[in-house]
Amino acid sequence: MNYAGRIARLRAATGVSGRTAFVVTRLDSVAYFCGFTGSFGDLVVADDRAVLATDGRYALRARTEPVGVEAYIGWQGRELLPEVLSSLGFRFPATALIEAEGLPLPRWERLQRCCPAGWMLEACAGLVDPMRAVKDADEIALLRKACAITDAAWCDVQPELAPGRTERSIARRIAELQLDHGADEWAHLIVASGPNAAMPHHTPTDRVLQGGDLLKVDIGAKYGGYCSDLTRTVIIGEPTDLQCRMYDAVYRGQMAACAAMRAGATGEGVDRAARSIIREAGFGDYYTHNLGHGLGRVKEPPHIVAGSVFEAGNVVTIEPGVYIEGVGGVRIEDLGVVTDAGFERLSLAPKPPSLAGPGAI
Amino acid sequence: MNYAGRIARLRAATGVSGRTAFVVTRLDSVAYFCGFTGSFGDLVVADDRAVLATDGRYALRARTEPVGVEAYIGWQGRELLPEVLSSLGFRFPATALIEAEGLPLPRWERLQRCCPAGWMLEACAGLVDPMRAVKDADEIALLRKACAITDAAWCDVQPELAPGRTERSIARRIAELQLDHGADEWAHLIVASGPNAAMPHHTPTDRVLQGGDLLKVDIGAKYGGYCSDLTRTVIIGEPTDLQCRMYDAVYRGQMAACAAMRAGATGEGVDRAARSIIREAGFGDYYTHNLGHGLGRVKEPPHIVAGSVFEAGNVVTIEPGVYIEGVGGVRIEDLGVVTDAGFERLSLAPKPPSLAGPGAI
Repeated sequence: MNYAGRIARLRAATGVSGRTAFVVTRLDSVAYFCGFTGSFGDLVVADDRAVLATDGRYALRARTEPVGVEAYIGWQGRELLPEVLSSLGFRFPATALIEAEGLPLPRWERLQRCCPAGWMLEACAGLVDPMRAVKDADEIALLRKACAITDAAWCDVQPELAPGRTERSIARRIAELQLDHGADEWAHLIVASGPNAAMPHHTPTDRVLQGGDLLKVDIGAKYGGYCSDLTRTVIIGEPTDLQCRMYDAVYRGQMAACAAMRAGATGEGVDRAARSIIREAGFGDYYTHNLGHGLGRVKEPPHIVAGSVFEAGNVVTIEPGVYIEGVGGVRIEDLGVVTDAGFERLSLAPKPPSLAGPGAI
Repeated sequence: MNYAGRIARLRAATGVSGRTAFVVTRLDSVAYFCGFTGSFGDLVVADDRAVLATDGRYALRARTEPVGVEAYIGWQGRELLPEVLSSLGFRFPATALIEAEGLPLPRWERLQRCCPAGWMLEACAGLVDPMRAVKDADEIALLRKACAITDAAWCDVQPELAPGRTERSIARRIAELQLDHGADEWAHLIVASGPNAAMPHHTPTDRVLQGGDLLKVDIGAKYGGYCSDLTRTVIIGEPTDLQCRMYDAVYRGQMAACAAMRAGATGEGVDRAARSIIREAGFGDYYTHNLGHGLGRVKEPPHIVAGSVFEAGNVVTIEPGVYIEGVGGVRIEDLGVVTDAGFERLSLAPKPPSLAGPGAI
């Protein structure tokens, strides 16, 4: 990972200088800038130094894991930023710009109370996200591997999807398969069958699969800190006409949105590509969420919403769905990279064009 | 779960009235007050109504899962609180008190910009935590079950802890065993061997266990939304004198802290009980973290820090440790309930009094 390059870009983007430091407060941002993966820490970036402030639980890890930064180890539970700022030897008046997205209001108020004399604190939103939204080659390689793991697990589990299995047992099997294929851990496991598939987000239960169920599986793995995200929907047994029409609308909408995505496309435009097809098929009222979201270490910008304009290097999901209470639901989701030419899918699991046709179970 | 009782206590504690509503913003607090387990939602508690505001991904779940509250379904990604407040039909001027702990600064600023006319917003910290810190019988039953799951997994895995196994394979096996014993999912898995055990928090690696390793295992399960947390340290093969002395200091310190814990005890007092023993044994500089923390749905107050005064019904970990770079580390941790008489352990896994003695591997 080119951590030095990332920190250099952060310095340039935030105006770090001899009188101004930037404080990275979100753990996933800290990991992005220096590779530290502990559960507590701020990264303080000055013009000539970068200091990771954490506590004794991570004393050793903070000296071995992060790249290009010094470690400052304080006592657990204490607000360390004043100590670190005081240790930095800035010329006053000096300013600390603080990544606002990771700042719970009580911490912000506490910081203002205990800030060392001579320091100005300024909470800044929207400085780090634009950097993280454009993935570099190292990140795309990790995302590609995470997707390959999830694709392989999905392919492996398909022959086991049959009446008698519970949602929970399928989720567990997919978790195991993802680990077998090299995942560090699993990221999320939605296995929703029959009427439960009408819930876009569902927690697996002991419900037993039955013939005629739509089975919607939305899964992800973590690899090297990066997440995959894949949804496929299959039918257990024979589909009804309504189920086929739901699938067909979602499939065509998802393909149209993938085709519409490219650098320069807008959130409205890509969303409309999917939503208009689903609406014309008569399911507009049953497609009740956004088209997709950015993904990297966590869900992160850009999301496919009004106002977004996509750039090459953005990594997003495209995942329309149709959900009908009492019937079930269909969602199809791929993760991919926005390019100048289009949308390069990272999710390569087979995506049958029809619920009952070739490629279906 | 007595959700109605919890909401009634919240109303009383926060001064909810015909002109004042309280907005629960942390997802784990929302789950505590109404049982909703989705990944997005606020609970708005007025004097005669309580409304769960979430988005279309949870439309169906919000009508079926939470108890005693109405559902308000808005569009994903939108700030819903203004719409919900406007729908509540309050007499003006009206106030919304907002749980501050769950409020990232950018959301707080957005809320202030888009708050409907006639509403005053006030961010309030420290109102919900004191309620959640005293567990009721339903919660303690869930915590007891979570601990029993983890205890059983630990007992099952012990015969497998031998040279040749990797940290990662042991972590995975413990995850499986916890699921086998009924866990909904695993909460955390620290498996740290040999020099890695010198890291209080460590992520399992492919390091292979060797004779003479200290093996520190800190694991937890989730059951019904509640977490267990157990640490045991064993020796692979024969311990050295230094390893035995480290274990002995931690064991006696942990037992002394358990003996000191009761309603009315202070954070300083309970901490001193363990720390003084470890210091007298010569390891004071190697015990580099707090004694323990509260636990429930997440890590939550009261923590064992200066200023804490414990009450009956608090659930905390007691987990001193000694960590020496190049040698390894020892930590022993139990979860338990504070009572008027003392500390009732919920973690019941065997806790051998010596690294090499009876009960050791």
